[in-house]
Amino acid sequence: MAESKGTLADVAAQAGVSVPTVSKVLNGKSDVAPATRAKVYEAIESTGYLTKRAAPRDSSGVIELLIEGADSPWALEVIRGAEGAAATRGSALIVTSSVHDSFSIERWTESLRARRSAGAVVVLPSEGDGVLKALKQLRIPVVLVDPAGWEGADFPTVGATNWSGGFEATNRLIELGHRDIGLIAGPSRLASALERQEGYAAALRRAGLPYRPELVVDGEFRMSGGYAAGATLLDLAARPTAIFSSSDQQAAGLYEAARERDIRIPAELSVIGFDDTVLSRHLSPALTTIHQPLTEMAAEAVRLISELGSDPSSHAARRIELTTYLVERRSAIALTSPTPTR
Amino acid sequence: MAESKGTLADVAAQAGVSVPTVSKVLNGKSDVAPATRAKVYEAIESTGYLTKRAAPRDSSGVIELLIEGADSPWALEVIRGAEGAAATRGSALIVTSSVHDSFSIERWTESLRARRSAGAVVVLPSEGDGVLKALKQLRIPVVLVDPAGWEGADFPTVGATNWSGGFEATNRLIELGHRDIGLIAGPSRLASALERQEGYAAALRRAGLPYRPELVVDGEFRMSGGYAAGATLLDLAARPTAIFSSSDQQAAGLYEAARERDIRIPAELSVIGFDDTVLSRHLSPALTTIHQPLTEMAAEAVRLISELGSDPSSHAARRIELTTYLVERRSAIALTSPTPTR
Repeated sequence: MAESKGTLADVAAQAGVSVPTVSKVLNGKSDVAPATRAKVYEAIESTGYLTKRAAPRDSSGVIELLIEGADSPWALEVIRGAEGAAATRGSALIVTSSVHDSFSIERWTESLRARRSAGAVVVLPSEGDGVLKALKQLRIPVVLVDPAGWEGADFPTVGATNWSGGFEATNRLIELGHRDIGLIAGPSRLASALERQEGYAAALRRAGLPYRPELVVDGEFRMSGGYAAGATLLDLAARPTAIFSSSDQQAAGLYEAARERDIRIPAELSVIGFDDTVLSRHLSPALTTIHQPLTEMAAEAVRLISELGSDPSSHAARRIELTTYLVERRSAIALTSPTPTR
Repeated sequence: MAESKGTLADVAAQAGVSVPTVSKVLNGKSDVAPATRAKVYEAIESTGYLTKRAAPRDSSGVIELLIEGADSPWALEVIRGAEGAAATRGSALIVTSSVHDSFSIERWTESLRARRSAGAVVVLPSEGDGVLKALKQLRIPVVLVDPAGWEGADFPTVGATNWSGGFEATNRLIELGHRDIGLIAGPSRLASALERQEGYAAALRRAGLPYRPELVVDGEFRMSGGYAAGATLLDLAARPTAIFSSSDQQAAGLYEAARERDIRIPAELSVIGFDDTVLSRHLSPALTTIHQPLTEMAAEAVRLISELGSDPSSHAARRIELTTYLVERRSAIALTSPTPTR
């Protein structure tokens, strides 16, 4: 990094623009061409302008939550956790969804600068290079929750023990006497989905059961994904007696596929889900599921921001995985007799 | 209101405290005794201090959402609507839940003053006198969404056409040939619950059907409320062939009560819910329900804040009711034959 003094004038000179233009970018105004804005950002970075100024003392104390869509039971848990932890800390929580057409990561980070936010919790289904670069330029604590992959290595992350959750769900079904256990997997682009699938495979292996590819069907982490995958599994000539569904929303789709085929849960099919959102308590029968501590994950991310904020040099990567556990409800029971067929 | 000049010193003199103490209260510091704080508020009001200063020009542009608990599918719709409208307006949305032990309406309104919020959307299950008084002292646009009763007459409110929603649900069941139609009502302390119940009664009346008190059971707007009320209705010697449930969460409880009795929905029992939250799409069978435009209601409240903000004299009460409508899914079908019993 250049050893310049890092004043506003230095930034302007280095970017080849006027001081008012630098001001506009810093204050989040939209009437600056993207190319110019990019030049200003580079100059801000190389002169160390923001690093010097973004001391915690200047912060407004506001915590930011960036989430893809505020439209799933999953999102609700995350919002609730972040709000609760912010309240405990005496901070306000600003919630921003990235689904709007008007959203851009650059505009969002600009607005955070303008309101001098204390830090940001970011929960996105994929963190592309552009997003990670913009987040890095923020110079405030940023914590990723449930990161899509392993790309965000420059940021602290808070996730769940997805592997052991997948292991525990499958192992429980084995304990209940099931041998033909299907898996509705999540999309393979997501680390969390792959880890749950690895846990499923490991539990089978430990029990000496074969991994049968025809019993593993993947789909999006949505009801429609679970419905399609569930239909495939339930239409197999020798259908499984139990299915581990990698998300509660997928399990809701599986319930519907079973209902359409007059297959009763749990009498004829045991189901274990993953997430333990508000949905799992409202399904009928109530869903036995792996509790993913989403509220705690979001709360932990907010706590990390406070911790990092007081020591800006500690922004180095830190990976936290919070523990999943099985919540027994009514959708998984012991296999006592051969599968009844109707 | 007194014709004083309304300076900080005037406020201090009238409250009988020092100027720094007034500052502390205005800046939301907590180290001021409640009694002193109350005196300062009274002085602020009678001197007109805040009215003068809280011009829209001073506002930070932030919109506030106060909601009881961020823990129901219902809350999710409200948050999504407010966030979307705030984004459209270029504003940040701060979400605060009132369920925390540390929450007090006074502390919340103080923090709004401190951060010069542009306005507040308030969604609480009951607005007591204390809450209404604190909101009035805010001197920024406040809009109540789905007000619990009719007390908030000094504020603009945004609700739904609850009566016509109740009417339409019941009328649809009558059109489908049902004559024995039960009602799972909401808690009678809530205006929205009473209006839905009145709509149910009116639809029966118009069809020349008797209102039978034994077919009307109330409960909280939660799954447990619908489960208990549903059990009562389904255990009647002559049980209804259709039930209108005043909320989707109650309908989820009714589904479970029906499942436990081996009563199939919709073959043996038609169900129509109310709300159309994310839950209704995930139940099995998918719930036919009355769409309550919760996201639109929250969005409308945010838009009202913008409108009122530019004309502070227009804070007079305004009541908006957004239209409900029926969403046909799979839980309500025509009564074609006598109720099968199993």
